[in-house]
Amino acid sequence: MHHHPLTPLSEAETNAARDIYLEEPLKKDLIPYLQLEHSGKLCPTSPRPRRLAKCQYDIVGSERVPEFHEAVVDVEGKVRISYTVVGKQHQASLILAEFDIFVKVCEESQMFKDAVAKFKLPEGFEVVIEPWPYGGRDRVTDDSRYFQGLIFAQDKRSGNPNSNFYAFPLPIIPVMDYHKREIVRIDRLATGGKGEDPLTLPEATRENPIGHCTPAEYIPELLSNGTRKDLKPLNVLQPEGPSFRVAQDESLVEWQKWRFRVGFNPREGATIHDIRYDGRSVLYRLSLSEMTVPYADPRYPFHRKQAFDFGDGGAGNCANNLSLGCDCLGVIKYFDGVVTDAEGNATVAPNVICLHEQDNGIGWKHTNWRTGRAVVTRSRELVVQFIITLANYEYIFAYKFDLAGGISVESRATGIVSVVNIDPGKQSEYGNVVGNGVLAQNHQHIFCIRIDPAIDGYKNTVYIEESHAVEMNDQTNPEGNLYRICKTPVEQSSWFDAAPEKNRIIKMVNTDKINPISQRPVGYKFTPMATQLLLADKRSIQARRAQFAQHHVWVTKYRDGELYAGGKYTLQSQEEVGGVSDAVKRGENVANEDVVVWSVFGITHNPRVEDWPVMPVECYQLNIRPTDFFTDNPAIDVPSNRNMSSQLVRSDDCSKCNL
Amino acid sequence: MHHHPLTPLSEAETNAARDIYLEEPLKKDLIPYLQLEHSGKLCPTSPRPRRLAKCQYDIVGSERVPEFHEAVVDVEGKVRISYTVVGKQHQASLILAEFDIFVKVCEESQMFKDAVAKFKLPEGFEVVIEPWPYGGRDRVTDDSRYFQGLIFAQDKRSGNPNSNFYAFPLPIIPVMDYHKREIVRIDRLATGGKGEDPLTLPEATRENPIGHCTPAEYIPELLSNGTRKDLKPLNVLQPEGPSFRVAQDESLVEWQKWRFRVGFNPREGATIHDIRYDGRSVLYRLSLSEMTVPYADPRYPFHRKQAFDFGDGGAGNCANNLSLGCDCLGVIKYFDGVVTDAEGNATVAPNVICLHEQDNGIGWKHTNWRTGRAVVTRSRELVVQFIITLANYEYIFAYKFDLAGGISVESRATGIVSVVNIDPGKQSEYGNVVGNGVLAQNHQHIFCIRIDPAIDGYKNTVYIEESHAVEMNDQTNPEGNLYRICKTPVEQSSWFDAAPEKNRIIKMVNTDKINPISQRPVGYKFTPMATQLLLADKRSIQARRAQFAQHHVWVTKYRDGELYAGGKYTLQSQEEVGGVSDAVKRGENVANEDVVVWSVFGITHNPRVEDWPVMPVECYQLNIRPTDFFTDNPAIDVPSNRNMSSQLVRSDDCSKCNL
Repeated sequence: MHHHPLTPLSEAETNAARDIYLEEPLKKDLIPYLQLEHSGKLCPTSPRPRRLAKCQYDIVGSERVPEFHEAVVDVEGKVRISYTVVGKQHQASLILAEFDIFVKVCEESQMFKDAVAKFKLPEGFEVVIEPWPYGGRDRVTDDSRYFQGLIFAQDKRSGNPNSNFYAFPLPIIPVMDYHKREIVRIDRLATGGKGEDPLTLPEATRENPIGHCTPAEYIPELLSNGTRKDLKPLNVLQPEGPSFRVAQDESLVEWQKWRFRVGFNPREGATIHDIRYDGRSVLYRLSLSEMTVPYADPRYPFHRKQAFDFGDGGAGNCANNLSLGCDCLGVIKYFDGVVTDAEGNATVAPNVICLHEQDNGIGWKHTNWRTGRAVVTRSRELVVQFIITLANYEYIFAYKFDLAGGISVESRATGIVSVVNIDPGKQSEYGNVVGNGVLAQNHQHIFCIRIDPAIDGYKNTVYIEESHAVEMNDQTNPEGNLYRICKTPVEQSSWFDAAPEKNRIIKMVNTDKINPISQRPVGYKFTPMATQLLLADKRSIQARRAQFAQHHVWVTKYRDGELYAGGKYTLQSQEEVGGVSDAVKRGENVANEDVVVWSVFGITHNPRVEDWPVMPVECYQLNIRPTDFFTDNPAIDVPSNRNMSSQLVRSDDCSKCNL
Repeated sequence: MHHHPLTPLSEAETNAARDIYLEEPLKKDLIPYLQLEHSGKLCPTSPRPRRLAKCQYDIVGSERVPEFHEAVVDVEGKVRISYTVVGKQHQASLILAEFDIFVKVCEESQMFKDAVAKFKLPEGFEVVIEPWPYGGRDRVTDDSRYFQGLIFAQDKRSGNPNSNFYAFPLPIIPVMDYHKREIVRIDRLATGGKGEDPLTLPEATRENPIGHCTPAEYIPELLSNGTRKDLKPLNVLQPEGPSFRVAQDESLVEWQKWRFRVGFNPREGATIHDIRYDGRSVLYRLSLSEMTVPYADPRYPFHRKQAFDFGDGGAGNCANNLSLGCDCLGVIKYFDGVVTDAEGNATVAPNVICLHEQDNGIGWKHTNWRTGRAVVTRSRELVVQFIITLANYEYIFAYKFDLAGGISVESRATGIVSVVNIDPGKQSEYGNVVGNGVLAQNHQHIFCIRIDPAIDGYKNTVYIEESHAVEMNDQTNPEGNLYRICKTPVEQSSWFDAAPEKNRIIKMVNTDKINPISQRPVGYKFTPMATQLLLADKRSIQARRAQFAQHHVWVTKYRDGELYAGGKYTLQSQEEVGGVSDAVKRGENVANEDVVVWSVFGITHNPRVEDWPVMPVECYQLNIRPTDFFTDNPAIDVPSNRNMSSQLVRSDDCSKCNL
């Protein structure tokens, strides 16, 4: 059996080092294949794109500094197709094995041991090293590869290895030169508060910097009062099984007229391809492209706390192995991924993606008040979910398909906020004291969703549509109630910001396909999420390396391989290179062309005490909706059957309140 | 047994005409009662506020124009406490009996019969009259009470009384003088399209104005292809019953440390009172206050299409009678309401509110990557829901309480968009052709949620909090990553707009209660929803009567009875009188005072073909969240038990795709 060109590489197909994954075919090669596929004429002898793997690996020679190579390999023909060396101005993405090396080097470093020894930690506490990417390169221009670590102490007395060490932050950050395998510096952290000179380090550090810190456990068996007992079970049952179908090759999903392929790669995690509804093309590809998390504490060296969670280490590499009954309810299909270890050996990462249906309340309803006849349908959603853990934080990403032709991309931020030590009794302008001795620093999370539309074809046009007030006038607006819809096609690659005061909407349309009812081009639309953009000063390294985070919408001309909003190489970057800002600068024609739309949104996260020790999810959702794509509400034929398993509350549930 | 002062009037307590409902006690009288109640010292002899009813009724005497009276009656003492006559400059809210009268008068009107007779309707079609409020008073200043009607034709050939008549709009609007019980005018509607003079009516009307219209059914038995068969059941089961408890008097609800009272009245529908968490006061009252729906077609007389769905007719009066298995899943408690008919007789409106729990995905999660230990909890919500039908449209409103101390107010718009006739083949600048011959006009829905905070006490302060970029400078921001949080207390009653570019947040805090961890005042916050405000020209009647719809946030000093953002009397109003704009003008001190916060948001609804014939829900949600109110995440003790009813997909679901 042939693999579909979009099926991720199997374990057998994967085998070399830093990362190996499917190199998606050139669009010009894939489109004819997809057309053949959807016409029903695909057969074993049909031409198909070569099955390519992108291999990223290190050449470790006599040089101190290894070269990072990237090759594209034909895994069937066993031929190397192309090959490049990552320039010295870039750093390859990190792999988790480098974090292990960091921890080991740190533990063995005399400099680190001496720094820790200066602290008189309470009995039973041990040091925990939390590796982090180094952030922007601190205005140095050498090609050193650095890692840094946040340092905590863990109370070992409970014997539970999951006791929350983040509650005990130590005020040092060791820095490792990766090539030297050496801790080259220990940065000492300020622990002062409001009104203290932010740029001067404390003269002396308290001997026991965590003496005023208190436990903040979240593991059920460590909670002092245990878990609550009065939350009764709520189960989702699907007695006839799910409504979706998954093909044996595990990449093709069909559900309620939707049909798409699920991809998975070490960088982006789950991706969605060739999305069609009732045989009509909607999107060529949908993905989470990048995310940056800059911290706003101006004290040295916290400006280096800025992660690019997709580019630095890879969302797929950090994907959770999901388990039944924990991350979703109902009937669940899990997808495995293939990842590589440091030696290049492929291993299966089980359950990195889950697929399930969920109820989302009423889908549509109308009651005829004359007759009393109500017709009400539920909104069912099909969810493709993956969850990533990045040290302290987690993100839950979901692609959701609904019965009314809508696609949503949801992001939930949870996990443990990043904290540093603060002296007893102090408050800070740079964050909030969320636990005793624990300062959660202000930060932002800025996400980018990449939308490659294929609205009834591969040539589309993006319109900016706004609703504008019109001044009262006798000619066209005598009563002052008129507003006008203004539509402007995007002719040249550009960026736009959200403008809710104008009801600004981004429409992706096919001007060659006209809706027979409205006589308008068929399309899909979204409202850019009006959230705060990157706050860092434009001249800062934080901002220079995250250009993508400075506008809400980018419209670019498609280029093969141009998938990453913040550029291909974000680790220790000083500038965004090859990201959306560069793509826009090409100034290409994007009207009635193969166009890509990038949607940016963010959370300015000034922590609350309620975010500690694990924060409740903070949800954001981008809604991509059909606009004159169909000839009526596609959910109009959803059954309005009464759900027979719903029950009335029993009367004995109604008399227990403490009046 | 005594009624709790907040329990709505029972059927027995209700008996007089236009509307009768609980007149909530003065706050100064209720607070001592609540304090006694929550201290556990309430007993049958405790002092309590008088049980008052607000009665609205008509005095029909020898005069042509009846007087509208409002009286407050002590239903136990059977004494009238106060009484006012609604001034001639106002109109009392409409009651549904007036709509019945309109339809009857219209049907008997020779003028209307003549207008209809000019149309040569196809065989089997009959006229349907859809009564509407008259909108703004059309710059007339007399005290006439008008109603208008949109006119449709219904295909009676199927014999199904629920065949969708909105698909066949007739281009006339009859206008009735209610006091004369007479159709005084038939407005003729333009049916032209783009480029035609908007203010000139068509010279002649087509004989059969619906000859080009086509059916648009949504009733399952009328769908030409029936309903889809492949959506398998998804059931929510709660084998141990719900986790909530409802007191026998039906107004008190307890769930997961939350405790509140549910009210219901003809104007606002469901209201929530005395909201407490773990014994601590959070909100005194939470309600949907008003909503206006102005239409933007400038052609006469469409500027009169502007509903105030709470003030004109009453959301409670229009509440659906919900039924099991249709409007929510799981174990459901329904609340009845008491409404009055035109004669003042009380009747029970069954199931106007439903209460149920729902799962909202992951609540919080963290995986310790060192040990692989994942702790993941679900987000459970308690939902108080009511649904209103206003002729063609429906709104689904839900107050939602979560496990992490959050309260959300959700609004879903669904139902049938308001349409008018358009000639064959034409398009319009004033709306979209969503069905053949059917123009859905552009319009807005602007909602106002009223929040009466009581954060750990009744005196609170509102802060406007923003996150501001700071220019790079050697003194305080050498690396350019700093941003500052700016907090400004609101000293005097004022309005504010959403400012997502500044991450503007509204915080309601108690400056006398300090969080022991962060040393900041305890509070609740929300981000004003950045949606487009009212577009109508400020000088227009549409805008003058909907001042509330022109800013996102209003902060006012509490006054008993000041509940309605758009003023008490909205029907045919020309100005907003006694609404939030007047309340703000009082210029009262609101710092550390009894303060009320009003949150405005809206939908600019430029219809899509997909909104026809019944639109998929359009959802908006206001999130009210604790901010340093607690000393940690209140959901940290939620059990992370594996849900044992979840199932893996069976392998035979995985091979059915059409590869």
